[in-house]
Amino acid sequence: MASQDGEDQRLQKIASAIRVIPNFPKPGIMFQDITTLLLDPTAFKDTIDLFVERYRSKDISVVAGIEARGFIFGPPIALAIGAKFVPMRKPNKLPGEVISEEYSLEYGTDKMEMHVGAVRAGERALIIDDLIATGGTLCAAIRLLERVGVEVVECACVIELPELKGRDRLGDRPLFVLVEG
Amino acid sequence: MASQDGEDQRLQKIASAIRVIPNFPKPGIMFQDITTLLLDPTAFKDTIDLFVERYRSKDISVVAGIEARGFIFGPPIALAIGAKFVPMRKPNKLPGEVISEEYSLEYGTDKMEMHVGAVRAGERALIIDDLIATGGTLCAAIRLLERVGVEVVECACVIELPELKGRDRLGDRPLFVLVEG
Repeated sequence: MASQDGEDQRLQKIASAIRVIPNFPKPGIMFQDITTLLLDPTAFKDTIDLFVERYRSKDISVVAGIEARGFIFGPPIALAIGAKFVPMRKPNKLPGEVISEEYSLEYGTDKMEMHVGAVRAGERALIIDDLIATGGTLCAAIRLLERVGVEVVECACVIELPELKGRDRLGDRPLFVLVEG
Repeated sequence: MASQDGEDQRLQKIASAIRVIPNFPKPGIMFQDITTLLLDPTAFKDTIDLFVERYRSKDISVVAGIEARGFIFGPPIALAIGAKFVPMRKPNKLPGEVISEEYSLEYGTDKMEMHVGAVRAGERALIIDDLIATGGTLCAAIRLLERVGVEVVECACVIELPELKGRDRLGDRPLFVLVEG
């Protein structure tokens, strides 16, 4: 287990490696760009290690990653803790039979899909995405897993935008984040 | 280094874990579904280990992963060999300044984008995707990297569809695959 100092240093390095791009995808949005974090092998490894240290002993058998940036952070965590990786995808991408959940966007709705048979009732899942904003996509992922009897142990993101209060929408499922944007 | 027998066993387990779904995304296509491989933590780990064993000592500083399934296989390899991970994305997804390359689909064209500044001239890159069919997307990724002076050391995929002869389109960049579909 790292000392608190070692952890603070790692978190600071991770925060510094994330780039903020103003006005993407539209005017007024300060986009938190994790691709610069991925360019720093040490900071990227620290990011994964911090999650793995937290979840290694939590008896988690499912890591669910939300398309597309959750696909980058989820698999290394799943491999390290010996869990399966379940992709939560945009509509019509998964080739097998799926269940789906709608969620709200600023204008209109979108859908998230998960393969039938990917998880079993009673399994314990961790949901991963790069960022929580309003929490709408995480809620859709929670609903997909809970519909089939999976327990969502925690949601984990690299970045939280606390002003958008997404955390409040997750109900009693804990949210763990590394840095605030 | 694993014995040849150990490697054959791992490859056989990987091949068995890949599911074939007929008529997706359209009639006549036998879709190679790697999501079932991700549900088997041992087979998924073997997949990553086989790539890592091959690339660990090849002085590669860039692992470029093609959206979206290349995002699942690329990061664990990049982390294990100490390389940066560079996402090659569909249009209008990357928030920073990009360069882009068009490639042909069966009907029409699509575009692949890479962030300006993600790589430097002289770096050595490995390109990762889950599958090579006609090779069009891998060729677009090669052009993006070579335009900015990066050497493409190899392209690596879990699955090759040899009948589609995608390998022939890669010119003198080597292609490494684990199984044939």
